[in-house]
Amino acid sequence: MRLGVLTGGGDCPGLNALIRGVIKRGTTELKYEFVGIENGYQGLVEPEMAHPLTLAETRGILPKGGTILGTSNRANPFQYAVKEAGKWVEKDLTEVALRRYRELSLDGLIAVGGDGTLCIASRLAELGMRAVGCPKTIDNDLSGTDQTFGYDTARAICTEAVDRLHTTAESHDRVMILEVMGRNAGFLALDSGIAGGADVIVIPEIPYRVEPIVEKIHRRAIRKRSFTIIVVSEGAFPAGGTQAVAQQAEEIPGRGVVRLGGAGKVLADQLAEHIEAEIRVTVLGHLQRGGSPTAADRLLATRFGCKVLDLVRDGRWSHMVALKGLEVVPVPLSESRKVRSVDPNAELVRFAKSMGTSFGD
Amino acid sequence: MRLGVLTGGGDCPGLNALIRGVIKRGTTELKYEFVGIENGYQGLVEPEMAHPLTLAETRGILPKGGTILGTSNRANPFQYAVKEAGKWVEKDLTEVALRRYRELSLDGLIAVGGDGTLCIASRLAELGMRAVGCPKTIDNDLSGTDQTFGYDTARAICTEAVDRLHTTAESHDRVMILEVMGRNAGFLALDSGIAGGADVIVIPEIPYRVEPIVEKIHRRAIRKRSFTIIVVSEGAFPAGGTQAVAQQAEEIPGRGVVRLGGAGKVLADQLAEHIEAEIRVTVLGHLQRGGSPTAADRLLATRFGCKVLDLVRDGRWSHMVALKGLEVVPVPLSESRKVRSVDPNAELVRFAKSMGTSFGD
Amino acid sequence: MRLGVLTGGGDCPGLNALIRGVIKRGTTELKYEFVGIENGYQGLVEPEMAHPLTLAETRGILPKGGTILGTSNRANPFQYAVKEAGKWVEKDLTEVALRRYRELSLDGLIAVGGDGTLCIASRLAELGMRAVGCPKTIDNDLSGTDQTFGYDTARAICTEAVDRLHTTAESHDRVMILEVMGRNAGFLALDSGIAGGADVIVIPEIPYRVEPIVEKIHRRAIRKRSFTIIVVSEGAFPAGGTQAVAQQAEEIPGRGVVRLGGAGKVLADQLAEHIEAEIRVTVLGHLQRGGSPTAADRLLATRFGCKVLDLVRDGRWSHMVALKGLEVVPVPLSESRKVRSVDPNAELVRFAKSMGTSFGD
Amino acid sequence: MRLGVLTGGGDCPGLNALIRGVIKRGTTELKYEFVGIENGYQGLVEPEMAHPLTLAETRGILPKGGTILGTSNRANPFQYAVKEAGKWVEKDLTEVALRRYRELSLDGLIAVGGDGTLCIASRLAELGMRAVGCPKTIDNDLSGTDQTFGYDTARAICTEAVDRLHTTAESHDRVMILEVMGRNAGFLALDSGIAGGADVIVIPEIPYRVEPIVEKIHRRAIRKRSFTIIVVSEGAFPAGGTQAVAQQAEEIPGRGVVRLGGAGKVLADQLAEHIEAEIRVTVLGHLQRGGSPTAADRLLATRFGCKVLDLVRDGRWSHMVALKGLEVVPVPLSESRKVRSVDPNAELVRFAKSMGTSFGD
Repeated sequence: MRLGVLTGGGDCPGLNALIRGVIKRGTTELKYEFVGIENGYQGLVEPEMAHPLTLAETRGILPKGGTILGTSNRANPFQYAVKEAGKWVEKDLTEVALRRYRELSLDGLIAVGGDGTLCIASRLAELGMRAVGCPKTIDNDLSGTDQTFGYDTARAICTEAVDRLHTTAESHDRVMILEVMGRNAGFLALDSGIAGGADVIVIPEIPYRVEPIVEKIHRRAIRKRSFTIIVVSEGAFPAGGTQAVAQQAEEIPGRGVVRLGGAGKVLADQLAEHIEAEIRVTVLGHLQRGGSPTAADRLLATRFGCKVLDLVRDGRWSHMVALKGLEVVPVPLSESRKVRSVDPNAELVRFAKSMGTSFGD
Repeated sequence: MRLGVLTGGGDCPGLNALIRGVIKRGTTELKYEFVGIENGYQGLVEPEMAHPLTLAETRGILPKGGTILGTSNRANPFQYAVKEAGKWVEKDLTEVALRRYRELSLDGLIAVGGDGTLCIASRLAELGMRAVGCPKTIDNDLSGTDQTFGYDTARAICTEAVDRLHTTAESHDRVMILEVMGRNAGFLALDSGIAGGADVIVIPEIPYRVEPIVEKIHRRAIRKRSFTIIVVSEGAFPAGGTQAVAQQAEEIPGRGVVRLGGAGKVLADQLAEHIEAEIRVTVLGHLQRGGSPTAADRLLATRFGCKVLDLVRDGRWSHMVALKGLEVVPVPLSESRKVRSVDPNAELVRFAKSMGTSFGD
Repeated sequence: MRLGVLTGGGDCPGLNALIRGVIKRGTTELKYEFVGIENGYQGLVEPEMAHPLTLAETRGILPKGGTILGTSNRANPFQYAVKEAGKWVEKDLTEVALRRYRELSLDGLIAVGGDGTLCIASRLAELGMRAVGCPKTIDNDLSGTDQTFGYDTARAICTEAVDRLHTTAESHDRVMILEVMGRNAGFLALDSGIAGGADVIVIPEIPYRVEPIVEKIHRRAIRKRSFTIIVVSEGAFPAGGTQAVAQQAEEIPGRGVVRLGGAGKVLADQLAEHIEAEIRVTVLGHLQRGGSPTAADRLLATRFGCKVLDLVRDGRWSHMVALKGLEVVPVPLSESRKVRSVDPNAELVRFAKSMGTSFGD
Repeated sequence: MRLGVLTGGGDCPGLNALIRGVIKRGTTELKYEFVGIENGYQGLVEPEMAHPLTLAETRGILPKGGTILGTSNRANPFQYAVKEAGKWVEKDLTEVALRRYRELSLDGLIAVGGDGTLCIASRLAELGMRAVGCPKTIDNDLSGTDQTFGYDTARAICTEAVDRLHTTAESHDRVMILEVMGRNAGFLALDSGIAGGADVIVIPEIPYRVEPIVEKIHRRAIRKRSFTIIVVSEGAFPAGGTQAVAQQAEEIPGRGVVRLGGAGKVLADQLAEHIEAEIRVTVLGHLQRGGSPTAADRLLATRFGCKVLDLVRDGRWSHMVALKGLEVVPVPLSESRKVRSVDPNAELVRFAKSMGTSFGD
């Protein structure tokens, strides 16, 4: 059995632990061979971006963030960006990908990624490739699995940031805004806001109004040494408004795209109209994707990596691994398309409100 | 409603987050009153060890390890150690505890602790007290709940220790032994061993022989720059032998008791008979219980703290909160008596073996 | 002897360790009394912002960031902002400050702060108050002392951020820009850039041009998996241009002031004109001032706190403590006015260049 | 110019940063060639333990603990342990070392290590080899340099351990003993004890008596929730007694040597005779040498690595680099023989005592 392995989508702590699990178990116990495909699907389209993956390559990578295979957010064989006459156009290069798959003598593909990457794997499988998947996202927005690796690390980084802002906000009388990732899902903001004891949590699932937040700040200011910590999800937006991040999303191929938050600055500007206190915005950005994965993420990633080989061995193609309770089980790859977001009436949201946290609603 | 709150048993990161959840939700939303009972059941037996618990006391405690209420490993009203004529004797002081419960005008007790603490709560409930519980242990050895808070933090600390030993072991040609906690359960050693990429993991559930471990070390030594990382659970023991920690357990009241590991040193001495490499033993000890809880533990503890008030409100006395999948649910307090240990045939153990890890069996 | 203690200027890790040193040594050994003055000089102007500082208040504060006394960036008795008829105006309230100093029966003032705070102390001393000082700044831009506490912590946080960006930048082909603090001094960017192995370091002392940075990025891009890490000091600016941060500096009293970086975004926008790679900007903001101080900063702050009492005891008013080599010594308060910046020809800059780092010059 | 590079003695965070500095500056700016000699002087005696060191090898090593060259505590060409007829004997193999130096066509040797390693370099230099040195020790016990890299990291790890013990000791009524490294010097214990706020600090330079420590514990116990944190240097010993660690030092070649602290356990057993509280001992062991170096250590190591090349370029053989104030300067290699220990009357010791810390004297 000879398997290709690729990692696609946004970078995510734990990818290397997963790759190590696949190679160590696959090589040692199952005697499979592996081919590393670089930069996600780009390595399946472009030449010379695939190489044998052996035990030697897994040495020391367990605690390392990132992915030794590289990744790509954009490389999609169905809509592949190529430069023609100085302009970027999108082409269907699935034929190239399928040909390369055969040229590499692969018996199957292990695709590790978020909804985009796994969806492409699912569609390629319909065209004749054999594929299994491992879900991955720091946003925790996939409904097919109880949790994904990478999320715990991102949450820990965001919580540490809230802790740090706490000590300094307490010394000044300030409003501190922390913008965190999460795309359209507020899990990261919700969890790190609660774990860090934020006063206000703003998430996409609960469009906010400025007034309740201003009121919360004023209520706190009545006490002598006042400060307010606000955690904002990058996808949050005011009731009746639109996502700031959406406006940045028109990425023009052929020109460097600059990203520096959005929702946090929008909220800060709104608050500045109503309050006198100084407002400071911190945008964690890619710090949330970097660094060594937590023990929990290394374990989950290692389990995913070992388990996905059971799917291969048992011929359960077009399935992916998923965490259900304490077990890692196979579910259809199509499950990766179902996204999840915070239920505004979830028990955790209710608990946070009952402890005095404002969601701006 | 006026509730007593106590924390018993070994210290555990997240206790303060739980207490904060209880007080913040209980005071703000439910308008309950709370009495903090100090040093576990000691505060229910001794005078002047109970005081009102208000919002003010919860300020800033969320990220702090330890417990603002203090705890005690030994105070058990059913067998309470008292000094009589210069000697320690055990007495049944349940009547005192029940009287104090009434004197404090309590409508119920929230007991936070491991199997010992919760079992006492359960027995006191049979004698007329009303009690609910929150399970807690860094050992993760309670079968009534999928996970307990504190465990994730302890696992993170152990994993960080394995990481650190890795960098230095690689530079020397050494056998590094790390002894971690866990009592009779090997979860901490298993999880941190896998998350840190240990070469050998020794747990109580799989009695070890020295020979396979020596063989593993020699197999590694064939490669030029050799080193071996071994994670040992404090409760581990050789096949046919007994637990080193058990021998230390005869704690004599009235004399300071010194603890400094056990199983790690035993294994080191055994290995020293067979190998030439230097062997170094690190005993993490109470470092595993200290420090700021992880985001995951703060969340779980906060959920436990908020949820246990639902049990009170709904009159579900003699129940405790438990994590089942993604939900926190009530289960009978008696569930706390059922301990859990690592299944030697668990998928995670098999995966570790398939990746080349030795368990000494 | 009865001494007032105040902390002024931007928050800085180690302030609590210093306060603890003052109170513990002062109370235990020297039998002095202390009065905590809140929010910097605000507590010397406004009523009811001063209270006795005792040993009890120092419990547990050693490892905590922030300052239990609060601080203020703006409160200056010589130009004190007061609201008159709905508008903010600046008034000279030194008479009020001197009166309060007498009303509190103070024999002297211990002022802890940066150039601003210490300069005010120096001027108040000319008006009859007795004052000694402890220098503090995360920017390390005071020439009167070899190093200040807070700097090591800020540098550690920035370096950790560079580490995290490294792992994720390596996985994508990206330009990662990290904007750090430092005001007009590039020490934080220089040190954390070297310690984190940044490819480009941009500091105020070396005005940058875009071309050499673009060239550096392209040289790296020739290798297959390219990425570039750039650390930018908040005060950096293009040759011939002005400081972005300066433009934000017109703080309008009476309206919330929003801060979200500057120099990093400016550079990113400039680079985007020349390169195709994605560019991501992270602004650490107040994370650099928060969190637990490093061991080195706790030690230096504790030494400053203990040593400043020698100055009081010896009647060396109008002096401040300073680190010179391995010793803490007294220097005149006027030394605090001399700022320091990175020498563009410093050995460390030359070493960085010799290892291949670009400074954009 | 073709230079050998070796790292000897105990492992130390920052060695990789130093190696990287040497190679990056040496290759890029100075066009030197480098040969990596493995496992300290072992690589200069044994065959096939030397290989070219290029820029490729320095990739990603800056934040990593350990040393890519390996190290050895024991390999000394003047007394080299060889096995003859099943027994270990010591031989003078300096001729072999000098021959290998010539065979490798080396123009000089860069030796990185503590007093042992540098002393050997100095003696080899007298025999015709050319050598320069970089001092390294986590014990900070070299008088020739104000500080060595590695020390700041070890101190940070010890301080973090004291912090963790604090939170858990506060919850129980316990005596927590932390044994740290330092050989015959108490710097690590002193600094981390002060930075962590330990109640008792025991160092080799101040032989301790049990009585004052017991008294300190009792004085604290008068307050209701008592606990005591004791930091013990591994080399500490009771007045009139001997070093526990010394007794372990008879390392028998040919048999695995087990190390598990010493001074901490000795003190614990002594205290147990006098107090009733539980006593727990933690031995940090090699955790103090592992993990990523702090920013300060990476900087110092990088500066040492770059600067030592100035010595080579300027022909200042038989010198080593040293930190003096803010500068890195050359000093004679012979300076490495002068060790430093804590002055019992140092200001820092006096300050600690003035704040209430007991040294057991």
